[in-house]
Amino acid sequence: MYFGVCYYPEHWPEERWETDAWMMREAGINIVRIGEFAWSRMERYEGSFDFSWLDRIIGILAKEGIQVILGTPTATPPKWLMDQHPDLYMRDMYGDVRGYGNRRHYCYNNEAYLPYISTIVGKMAERYGNDPRVVAWQIDNEFGCNDTTRCYCDQCRTQFQLWLKDKYQDIDHLNACWGTVFWSQIYNEWEQIIVPAYTVFPLHNPGLVLDYRRFASDAVCKFQKFQTDLIRKYAPHSTITHNMMGAFNEIDAFDLSAELDIVSWDNYPNLMFTKEVDPALAAMQHDMTRGLKGQNFWVMEHQSGQPGGNIMFPTPKPQELRRWTYQSIAHGADGILYFRWRGCLFGAEQYWHGILAHDGKAGRKYREVQQVGTELARIWPLLEGTKNEDQVAMIRSYDNEWVFEIQPHIMDYTYMGHFTNYYHYLFEQQLGTDVISPDADFSKYRMLIMPNFIMTNEEIVAKVYKFVHDGGTLVLDYRAGAKDWHNRMEALTLPGKFAELLGITVEEYGVLGKEEYRAIRMDGSETIYRGGTWFDVIEMRGAEAVATFTDDYFAGCPAVTSHVYGLGKAYYIGTEMDKELREEVLHLICRDAGLVQTLDVEVPEGVEIVTRKQGDQAYMFVINHRIEAAQVQLHSRFFDLLSEQELHEETKLEGNGVMILSQNK
Amino acid sequence: MYFGVCYYPEHWPEERWETDAWMMREAGINIVRIGEFAWSRMERYEGSFDFSWLDRIIGILAKEGIQVILGTPTATPPKWLMDQHPDLYMRDMYGDVRGYGNRRHYCYNNEAYLPYISTIVGKMAERYGNDPRVVAWQIDNEFGCNDTTRCYCDQCRTQFQLWLKDKYQDIDHLNACWGTVFWSQIYNEWEQIIVPAYTVFPLHNPGLVLDYRRFASDAVCKFQKFQTDLIRKYAPHSTITHNMMGAFNEIDAFDLSAELDIVSWDNYPNLMFTKEVDPALAAMQHDMTRGLKGQNFWVMEHQSGQPGGNIMFPTPKPQELRRWTYQSIAHGADGILYFRWRGCLFGAEQYWHGILAHDGKAGRKYREVQQVGTELARIWPLLEGTKNEDQVAMIRSYDNEWVFEIQPHIMDYTYMGHFTNYYHYLFEQQLGTDVISPDADFSKYRMLIMPNFIMTNEEIVAKVYKFVHDGGTLVLDYRAGAKDWHNRMEALTLPGKFAELLGITVEEYGVLGKEEYRAIRMDGSETIYRGGTWFDVIEMRGAEAVATFTDDYFAGCPAVTSHVYGLGKAYYIGTEMDKELREEVLHLICRDAGLVQTLDVEVPEGVEIVTRKQGDQAYMFVINHRIEAAQVQLHSRFFDLLSEQELHEETKLEGNGVMILSQNK
Amino acid sequence: MYFGVCYYPEHWPEERWETDAWMMREAGINIVRIGEFAWSRMERYEGSFDFSWLDRIIGILAKEGIQVILGTPTATPPKWLMDQHPDLYMRDMYGDVRGYGNRRHYCYNNEAYLPYISTIVGKMAERYGNDPRVVAWQIDNEFGCNDTTRCYCDQCRTQFQLWLKDKYQDIDHLNACWGTVFWSQIYNEWEQIIVPAYTVFPLHNPGLVLDYRRFASDAVCKFQKFQTDLIRKYAPHSTITHNMMGAFNEIDAFDLSAELDIVSWDNYPNLMFTKEVDPALAAMQHDMTRGLKGQNFWVMEHQSGQPGGNIMFPTPKPQELRRWTYQSIAHGADGILYFRWRGCLFGAEQYWHGILAHDGKAGRKYREVQQVGTELARIWPLLEGTKNEDQVAMIRSYDNEWVFEIQPHIMDYTYMGHFTNYYHYLFEQQLGTDVISPDADFSKYRMLIMPNFIMTNEEIVAKVYKFVHDGGTLVLDYRAGAKDWHNRMEALTLPGKFAELLGITVEEYGVLGKEEYRAIRMDGSETIYRGGTWFDVIEMRGAEAVATFTDDYFAGCPAVTSHVYGLGKAYYIGTEMDKELREEVLHLICRDAGLVQTLDVEVPEGVEIVTRKQGDQAYMFVINHRIEAAQVQLHSRFFDLLSEQELHEETKLEGNGVMILSQNK
Repeated sequence: MYFGVCYYPEHWPEERWETDAWMMREAGINIVRIGEFAWSRMERYEGSFDFSWLDRIIGILAKEGIQVILGTPTATPPKWLMDQHPDLYMRDMYGDVRGYGNRRHYCYNNEAYLPYISTIVGKMAERYGNDPRVVAWQIDNEFGCNDTTRCYCDQCRTQFQLWLKDKYQDIDHLNACWGTVFWSQIYNEWEQIIVPAYTVFPLHNPGLVLDYRRFASDAVCKFQKFQTDLIRKYAPHSTITHNMMGAFNEIDAFDLSAELDIVSWDNYPNLMFTKEVDPALAAMQHDMTRGLKGQNFWVMEHQSGQPGGNIMFPTPKPQELRRWTYQSIAHGADGILYFRWRGCLFGAEQYWHGILAHDGKAGRKYREVQQVGTELARIWPLLEGTKNEDQVAMIRSYDNEWVFEIQPHIMDYTYMGHFTNYYHYLFEQQLGTDVISPDADFSKYRMLIMPNFIMTNEEIVAKVYKFVHDGGTLVLDYRAGAKDWHNRMEALTLPGKFAELLGITVEEYGVLGKEEYRAIRMDGSETIYRGGTWFDVIEMRGAEAVATFTDDYFAGCPAVTSHVYGLGKAYYIGTEMDKELREEVLHLICRDAGLVQTLDVEVPEGVEIVTRKQGDQAYMFVINHRIEAAQVQLHSRFFDLLSEQELHEETKLEGNGVMILSQNK
Repeated sequence: MYFGVCYYPEHWPEERWETDAWMMREAGINIVRIGEFAWSRMERYEGSFDFSWLDRIIGILAKEGIQVILGTPTATPPKWLMDQHPDLYMRDMYGDVRGYGNRRHYCYNNEAYLPYISTIVGKMAERYGNDPRVVAWQIDNEFGCNDTTRCYCDQCRTQFQLWLKDKYQDIDHLNACWGTVFWSQIYNEWEQIIVPAYTVFPLHNPGLVLDYRRFASDAVCKFQKFQTDLIRKYAPHSTITHNMMGAFNEIDAFDLSAELDIVSWDNYPNLMFTKEVDPALAAMQHDMTRGLKGQNFWVMEHQSGQPGGNIMFPTPKPQELRRWTYQSIAHGADGILYFRWRGCLFGAEQYWHGILAHDGKAGRKYREVQQVGTELARIWPLLEGTKNEDQVAMIRSYDNEWVFEIQPHIMDYTYMGHFTNYYHYLFEQQLGTDVISPDADFSKYRMLIMPNFIMTNEEIVAKVYKFVHDGGTLVLDYRAGAKDWHNRMEALTLPGKFAELLGITVEEYGVLGKEEYRAIRMDGSETIYRGGTWFDVIEMRGAEAVATFTDDYFAGCPAVTSHVYGLGKAYYIGTEMDKELREEVLHLICRDAGLVQTLDVEVPEGVEIVTRKQGDQAYMFVINHRIEAAQVQLHSRFFDLLSEQELHEETKLEGNGVMILSQNK
Repeated sequence: MYFGVCYYPEHWPEERWETDAWMMREAGINIVRIGEFAWSRMERYEGSFDFSWLDRIIGILAKEGIQVILGTPTATPPKWLMDQHPDLYMRDMYGDVRGYGNRRHYCYNNEAYLPYISTIVGKMAERYGNDPRVVAWQIDNEFGCNDTTRCYCDQCRTQFQLWLKDKYQDIDHLNACWGTVFWSQIYNEWEQIIVPAYTVFPLHNPGLVLDYRRFASDAVCKFQKFQTDLIRKYAPHSTITHNMMGAFNEIDAFDLSAELDIVSWDNYPNLMFTKEVDPALAAMQHDMTRGLKGQNFWVMEHQSGQPGGNIMFPTPKPQELRRWTYQSIAHGADGILYFRWRGCLFGAEQYWHGILAHDGKAGRKYREVQQVGTELARIWPLLEGTKNEDQVAMIRSYDNEWVFEIQPHIMDYTYMGHFTNYYHYLFEQQLGTDVISPDADFSKYRMLIMPNFIMTNEEIVAKVYKFVHDGGTLVLDYRAGAKDWHNRMEALTLPGKFAELLGITVEEYGVLGKEEYRAIRMDGSETIYRGGTWFDVIEMRGAEAVATFTDDYFAGCPAVTSHVYGLGKAYYIGTEMDKELREEVLHLICRDAGLVQTLDVEVPEGVEIVTRKQGDQAYMFVINHRIEAAQVQLHSRFFDLLSEQELHEETKLEGNGVMILSQNK
């Protein structure tokens, strides 16, 4: 297993390097990421290269048995480069230049940048591409971070026009797909097409905006490919990754992952001011990352201290880093690199804390990392090769998420908030969940949730029908099937192409305002639940009611329906269910899908169970996300890899505590 | 009566047109508005015209007995035109170009636009100006919508300078009127004069800003006149209108109406997220529209479904469209066109719903429209020629509203909010109210309310004095008379030129913060009311106290006064009265004015009564704005035109229900 | 004493001037500030001067015994000047021009402005510099007002580069001090250096931003010096001042004061909408102003009516102006000029009220000013030469305040809010306080508070150690010593260079969110207090605990410590104490410092006591800031200068009332 840190030797005097390397090894560290912002130190003046310091630090690390992941420094082109090409800066939607002073200050579509990249990355790949001490490459850093995916410069407009020409071929095909006849926006020439910048009112043609987002995402992939090609040219066997950002949605991470050997992401669970951090959010993002290539991943930056830019975030409490580390591993991380080794004395991130404080002394967090390092050195041989094997999948569609961002059309709504509601239920039920692309293979799952799948196309529809027909359990909900893949409304009665599968039509619908709800009853129960945000007025065309509205003019109409189709069953949910109704309905659906499990381990709320398996061998991670101790009931005998004890019946798990249970020692 | 829809044939395949026309006729529709955004379809390339599709749809509609209102498409100049004149785009106050992508993307003051308008509107007028199937013309669409009245481009600055030169003649006259000596802003040349764009602090010379708003309003009128002149040249007998926006205040709608044959407006009562829509707001805007020319009007766009751009608004409930339709007619609408026929599949307004859903099927709302169409076909012959005959008028002054927008000087205050407070009282008392210009004839009213008339001039003052002298009842309130017509403070003791009429002086005054009130007592009563927002410290110069402050250092000073002047009475209100005090004071004033009426119909709160008359014949619209049924007490025998029943004593009016009562069958 | 008004003769007809001057004299006025916005009236066209009107008004005033403070009109360059040099306008961080229309529309660093200033100020100085009727000069007006300190234009960038070159000499010294190696921001040439304008994410290099703020502050001082040099050239013996703005922090007012003969400030205590104005805020700003040169000062603009631009502020109640006036004098004001004589009829400040209303009549406020004028004429001979003599000082560091603005790193935190918490305690204890620069002489104080002194340098550290060593009592608190003077983190264990003095180390720390607190107990007490905002985890290295955390993982660690060092004592406070704990801890510290005083006068909350002294003679100002009367206990016999009565035992002080007590008549 890779257990490491992100390290910036260029920030510290060389005299300190050996101390750092020695302290790292003492903590069990075997990998270090370096170089990703060090362009100025490698090429201070154009064409004048200095890799000697990099050679030295790689050597010092190697002496302590530590290997290196090398980052390409393209997130921070130096000032001398920018001064030669001021048109490289991104422009915002008002046309204002987003100038120098932070990072990521370049437009992906400006080809003037490419020769500089060729030179610096080429030199690096040539020098270190076959160096056994350098085990992997990271391209750039956090593509899209700080709103850097979409640019409104002239090059972008031109590239967008070419991208559209390539996609639509005929301008009148584009006019038809976008519906430019609306408000006289018909284009006669490709060169007339705009980017969706500042206009009279912030409401552009929805087809144009969606395509612009697709184009911008594609441009990042293309930019990345330029570098992976370069590295592979010099080092055909190198392992290449990029550090992604979990739920970040401006770039289609499925596309971005295609060219990579392994995906990694940056996990900062405590990057918020809620008094209690929700562990499901980190879990969900791990699952999202694992779904990108359907394989295990690395956490390239793992929180180790309080982050901070303009504002500082909360300080991790004792044992918190250890807990998050094991959660990461439980969800499929095969590599963990803490960010950062030591708090930097200067620069925009001087308040972004690391394992060591600014004084460089071994403190509480260093000792905690050391504890984890020691544990992992011992237990990793058992865990190696194990994987999460899940029977439920949620579909994450960037295209659909974009559509809701472009025109939410529902107040106080976000696609990801709605998505998370479902995930939360599964998390609380300890139901391991894959998060997959609409283009993935559905056949290996028993149950599929497709939240607010507003936009669809023939291919997806066909796969979904087949999935249910072959025995799968499907959940669709409000807005499903309302649009085609061009962000146009379907001329069909809702739920459009899904109507036959679901056995319903939606005759009317509407939004519900903030704090506005409609009463709902489950069939056969007296309890009153609530639906908010949205209501569908459903007419049955073969389906059965699972829950029914009991007030407003659509009282008596179903709110949730089920429909047998082939060997499977398709559910439809026509409102945003409150927590209680969600639990009732999803419990029923999961039971139907044969997913209600009886685990040999029983835990109170706040304790997570995740299993990694290989063949018959299963390792159950039991993670106490609470500060207080928890009573865990074991219904058979287990061996805890961490405490190295045999456990049975009731056992106490400390606050922030973790067990890794195996049936055999 | 015109009963119709807004229709966009260019959005639908021609195969559908006949179905649509047939369905319209089946619903009782006899008029359709078309063409107002179809420039690209009429002139896709410069100078290349295609009206054949327009000919065809006009023909299809005519076959079903449906006439046409034709819109000029100048709200959406095509991209090819904009690419020829990029300087046509508006600029915001920061100088940023408000670019392509929505609509209304042109500056009214840029003369480069005019030849293109001449061509397209000229061709349309030539072709359809004398076509009997085309019964009226709409110029452009919703002038000023989405903050498009005021532009800060170079042409605007130049035109503003010319407008000022024309108004002031002598630069030092302008300097004196604006008080440019303040902060050394004296202008030596007309060319030095600025538009009130972005500056160090958002507080320009108040005279300059007011004149800029007047200029911008005038520019729209001039822009409109260019088109009315064009159409009248080809079709001297055509009926020309423009669809205005009720309470919208950036353009002086009295001025804009002057060139029109009939005014119309766009009525979306449910364009908000309050749980219960306030029916007084739609009523007030009907009354405002009727007051523009003192004659009946059309509702050019009448809400028929949930509107929606980025956010969707609530769905109308059953019978809601019918209720709003009859309210419109009750307040003087002689034409109703629903917006829109069918939800568009694409474009920025794909969520702006119409009578038909996106699937084009006849649903609940279609049947409701059909019900109204059938009813109107039967009863319109009785209503034709009837009018609202009101004895109370409220004065709406755009100039004064602008002054308060330029410098509200009172926290959380809006002129229109204050205006609405008075209107609400009259609405609740079923007192039909005209909303008129300060330039209107006051003599036909018994009572006149002039809310916060801060700026005044000699002509208005003379009219007001005469009105009271001749027996009228006048209500003025805080800030009255503080400024002259140039937005300069009067050097007079307040209420300035109104002091003699009101028999008071205001010695001091001040704002009251949020949730800050002063206690007030009516003379002869123990009840404590509250005044907020503002206080005047009034000294009596002949007036009598109606209500008196009882705390703070001005305890004992009057809050409301009355003064006999000639045959009439002038009231002054020196604070923002709370609802209870407002009811007491206005009841007293209305009683004085002989306006307290005893109707033969008694209704609970939430039910509106409006009367249209012709000679002796009166039709009383009784409209239940509640969802629940209401008990209506009839003190004489009535015939209800809608149910075609004789009614007397207690009768039940369903939720959303309407009666039109007549004394004779 | 100077007792006067700000007056704008150019706003009024000459016929009125004599009336105004006569009314002023009747009110006891002996000084008038004029001219500071009158450039257009002195030089309407370039090179065409008219000072005749100024001669006339100075003459009229002199006839009534009134002297003049003359303002240089450079805050409002006329339009003809701006039209010649459009590059004179400031630019905001987006590069947008902050255009004409308000005031202060120029960049301090644009040298094109200087010749125009030379001419107009030179002419004024030549004409009036030795005129005995002109007793002082005010340079410009409120430097920095309305966000006009920092500009992002090209001249500023160039001047900043020169300023940096001058400061750092060697570009690599700058690179090292700023830590530009972070994110590859190394500069190779001075010309590459940016100003901290709009970039990808609003987080620039902290060293750069701090230096940019220092540079901008210096630029204003340089701009002012250009004018003081000019005036002194023509009138070497003139008294020169500038009207500053109390707590305003964009310009280092210690630096700005260096070139001035006397400082003055603009005091608007009621410039807010809180229902009760906090009198400590005006007191603190008086003390700040007095500390600028360590000498008495003038209030150049003293609120006399409700202020108002876009929004109007509350109206002063009866006796409120008098109360604020005596508070000003109590804190060291030797001159008071009310703003403004009469409400202006036009311009951006038509709602900024003065002594006279717009009608120009003598009203309530005029009579109140007259009362004060009469009193002062009588008592000033006694007060002349008296001063505040304080034993406590708070250090105000602009550099440190800027650091916290650049990266607050603590939620909902402001340096000045934290500063005010300490001041408030001292204010409530009637402990006269000096507010001084870190460069001031500490030796005359018994106690020194240095709030959040995050950034420090060798000189200050040495002075602080010496201060305590010699017997002083010092208060430092959280974040002290974390950074060096370049805004870089110290590589030392916290509190860095203060560790030895304080006898502690801070091993960990963290932010506390909104409404998040940790329990704290004072040693020997059961009461539970709360710390919020921040916590330090302190380890004792010789200090003693004063208060201790009792929850979270650092329960048992000290929250407040004390440490004997030499003859003195150094306290450290590792959290934001709640009000109750603050009172306990500061009481203890003040007692230690020998500062707990027993006054002969006892007053209830809301009554302030301030003493001015000269030798043995003390005048105790007792100021009732409440609307209600207060009972004042006198423990010895006093003579009240205002009522001219002998007072002892219990005496009643009216709401807004003031006494000036002396031991001898």
